[in-house]
Amino acid sequence: MLNYALLAFVPVAFALEALHAPGVWVFLASALALLPLASWMGRATEELAARAGSTVGGLLNATFGNAAELIIAGIALAAGKTEVVKASITGSILSNLLLVLGLSIFLGGLRFSSQRFNVQAANIMASLLTLSLLALLLPALFDLAERSYFRVDPRLPNLSFSHAAAIVLILVYLANIYFSLRTHRDLVGAKGEEHAEEAQWSLPVAVGVLALATVGVAVMAELLVGSLEAATATLHLSEFFVGIILIPLVGNAAEHFAAVSFALKNKMDLSVQITIGSSLQIALLVVPLLVLLGWLIGKPLDLVLRNPLELGALFASIIATNAVVRDGETNWLEGFLLLGVYALLALAFFFTPQ
Amino acid sequence: MLNYALLAFVPVAFALEALHAPGVWVFLASALALLPLASWMGRATEELAARAGSTVGGLLNATFGNAAELIIAGIALAAGKTEVVKASITGSILSNLLLVLGLSIFLGGLRFSSQRFNVQAANIMASLLTLSLLALLLPALFDLAERSYFRVDPRLPNLSFSHAAAIVLILVYLANIYFSLRTHRDLVGAKGEEHAEEAQWSLPVAVGVLALATVGVAVMAELLVGSLEAATATLHLSEFFVGIILIPLVGNAAEHFAAVSFALKNKMDLSVQITIGSSLQIALLVVPLLVLLGWLIGKPLDLVLRNPLELGALFASIIATNAVVRDGETNWLEGFLLLGVYALLALAFFFTPQ
Amino acid sequence: MLNYALLAFVPVAFALEALHAPGVWVFLASALALLPLASWMGRATEELAARAGSTVGGLLNATFGNAAELIIAGIALAAGKTEVVKASITGSILSNLLLVLGLSIFLGGLRFSSQRFNVQAANIMASLLTLSLLALLLPALFDLAERSYFRVDPRLPNLSFSHAAAIVLILVYLANIYFSLRTHRDLVGAKGEEHAEEAQWSLPVAVGVLALATVGVAVMAELLVGSLEAATATLHLSEFFVGIILIPLVGNAAEHFAAVSFALKNKMDLSVQITIGSSLQIALLVVPLLVLLGWLIGKPLDLVLRNPLELGALFASIIATNAVVRDGETNWLEGFLLLGVYALLALAFFFTPQ
Repeated sequence: MLNYALLAFVPVAFALEALHAPGVWVFLASALALLPLASWMGRATEELAARAGSTVGGLLNATFGNAAELIIAGIALAAGKTEVVKASITGSILSNLLLVLGLSIFLGGLRFSSQRFNVQAANIMASLLTLSLLALLLPALFDLAERSYFRVDPRLPNLSFSHAAAIVLILVYLANIYFSLRTHRDLVGAKGEEHAEEAQWSLPVAVGVLALATVGVAVMAELLVGSLEAATATLHLSEFFVGIILIPLVGNAAEHFAAVSFALKNKMDLSVQITIGSSLQIALLVVPLLVLLGWLIGKPLDLVLRNPLELGALFASIIATNAVVRDGETNWLEGFLLLGVYALLALAFFFTPQ
Repeated sequence: MLNYALLAFVPVAFALEALHAPGVWVFLASALALLPLASWMGRATEELAARAGSTVGGLLNATFGNAAELIIAGIALAAGKTEVVKASITGSILSNLLLVLGLSIFLGGLRFSSQRFNVQAANIMASLLTLSLLALLLPALFDLAERSYFRVDPRLPNLSFSHAAAIVLILVYLANIYFSLRTHRDLVGAKGEEHAEEAQWSLPVAVGVLALATVGVAVMAELLVGSLEAATATLHLSEFFVGIILIPLVGNAAEHFAAVSFALKNKMDLSVQITIGSSLQIALLVVPLLVLLGWLIGKPLDLVLRNPLELGALFASIIATNAVVRDGETNWLEGFLLLGVYALLALAFFFTPQ
Repeated sequence: MLNYALLAFVPVAFALEALHAPGVWVFLASALALLPLASWMGRATEELAARAGSTVGGLLNATFGNAAELIIAGIALAAGKTEVVKASITGSILSNLLLVLGLSIFLGGLRFSSQRFNVQAANIMASLLTLSLLALLLPALFDLAERSYFRVDPRLPNLSFSHAAAIVLILVYLANIYFSLRTHRDLVGAKGEEHAEEAQWSLPVAVGVLALATVGVAVMAELLVGSLEAATATLHLSEFFVGIILIPLVGNAAEHFAAVSFALKNKMDLSVQITIGSSLQIALLVVPLLVLLGWLIGKPLDLVLRNPLELGALFASIIATNAVVRDGETNWLEGFLLLGVYALLALAFFFTPQ
């Protein structure tokens, strides 16, 4: 329902832009328009995945699951807003691991005293996540080492290192795909069984919706990025706050909703898979693709998170997720705690100077 | 026995103060007097808890368990010694998690080859602890971000952030109470069963002892804080060392003794509960109360631990406790290792310049 | 076979040095000569251990397992190359935990879908490792605290602290030996059963080989260290890169080979024991011995890792090993991830300015 209604904001955003309305209105309208568009992109991808064999389908889901986010971040990158891009990457991981997983565990825990899920799969995902996020933190450390220890200007070597690191990350991503779709499908493949639905759309419809939604996301992202500066000035928010808190909410709303509904149906395995899986995809695929894209279009994006708060937040999210997920069992308090950590981070980002 | 004998130091401390004896004597006498007073406060609270129903009793124990420490820290705060207050908070958590838990595991392990405890409860406590300490580390990160990244003077926003964070911490504390006394009482409630004793004192006695001991703690804490500067100068110790190593020993001696004796009786569940529970209480209740108190009395206390050694020590204690407790089984070597980490930290604090 | 063939590089290294050949040739020849010499030292130690009772034998293995590395680092220390010494310590731990354990798990995992090992022993080793590495990171934190917070020149107190810390580390090492050879032999003693072989050499042969190999290692290490500067200049590598990546490979090649072959035979317990055990030995024995040696010979070595990249790499290796080992089960992807983290670190070290 809402997925149809909110589409009304697509023409509204256009109209506001054409009428040179204040930036904040364009910003809000395009943000609202992105919600259903990203959701339709996801839906169409799933339809295509359901038609393909399970391996190709899994690949499609694994690769295009965060396509909307990739497009938004890519457009922000092309506009030269590298700090917003980095913030939105960190923010996506944080919102998946703390806000959405926290909300799923909390709300699921209000209904069921204790929710269990496959410990083995959860442990593998948590290990993967831990190692991936470490990989994401390394470049910042490298930068810090150069500045504080070697006292050199870290401009050039960082980019070489970031490019090399991007390639390593993509290799890890491919290994992960091969692992979960081929050699250890049964282990992490709960998704396949329970989640998969029959294809309901004909192929042309699915392809058409995907194409339209993708174009829609790209156009609305243009408007969003274009109105970012005016909107943050009006709303008295920092671009950093918008990048780290608001943009991830817009790009991921559909998955967020799915994760919470699975938790309410006591299918905690799926909630864990969606949230951790999406974070993995961002760290291992979206991030290196953006680095390589930046290289290509001459808008260099290094992997360096220079704000210690961002670094610490990512690190905290690794530790928190591990603490909660490793034992294969959750209760409402654990969800509440994840939400508490997210609230503290959001407060910190909010009070961060502009 | 000792709990009566040491009370003799109450008049001794007064006499020394009245006679203008050197500060170091007042300091030592008031420190020794605080040992039995804090212990009587704890005993009286337990008597009251035993008389109340189990929920109210649990609430009393959970809330007033660290009342002596709160009073000592509050008086130090009123005297403007904010760095001592922060050091004593960190020190309390360190001494609980490394010294007391380490000693319990080590001594218990000398008697029993391997000691087991409820894995599930230990995991939940360890998760809670991890997330609470992360929350405690965030403001420092926030401060670091402002200084090093945004290069702004972090005075004002930090306080706003610290106040907001204090409220989030108290909410988490209340959730934790509700969890352990209501929704998941059976899970973490081993304490209730084994620990609870029959009330032995009449109500007026219990209330009277509590009132007297509380007043005694407050007065002795005044003397302790008042003589701190003179004493540290004479003893060639930094105020930081006194705050982080000595004050926590004084305020917690009774719980420390209890944790070790339970370990020697192979009731490792209780040792773990006392030490981790007390750390939780400090992070989630004592700390935010002190922040709000500072706000009220105009002695602003932010939550920022600026000394990297303090930050690292807290972080090390999270990791060490998790490493030892998560598998639900301990041996003497694990206790020895915790003590080793504590010894290294104490050495570092000792060699820290004044 | 190779162990005999590579010995030919001993005279070659001498000849090149005598002929004043370019440093890089001396460097490469002595590095190649060290491979079989370190391996013969290890073999002779095992022969002596097999002849001794199991306790003394265990002690021999536990103490001389990293003797070759200790000699190389000691000679570098005597030559005043403290930063190379520190880098080689960090590098040894990294190569054990990420490269060798990663390669073992990856290659073993290609042959066996899932490899299991004793969870309890793995957990204890992982806890020991975690706490030992924390101990190793503390001095750096102490140094940071002094510089950034107390703004004092950290020269003198650091050395006192490093000496005191070295003694604590050796005590922990002795406790660990006593634990695994005496009180909890059965728990961690899998090595004894499967690994032990009959003594094949007569006592004089074993002693003779050990003596010769030790002298050989010492002499070749002299050549290696002496030619380090010339070699790094020719190869365009930093001394730091040589210390952290190349030297550990040379000193540990034999153990590395053993760990991987056990994994291929599905004896994952032994691979885990060799790699984590060797890291423990470095952190708890080699490091403090080097500190005390430096004190003795007047080449002060503090324990402070000043390069944030080194610190972060050690920390990442703790977290990564824990993530992979704790659940007592591994698959090829986990090995691939450890290798990925190692590759990222090696890239960072490679791009590090000279």
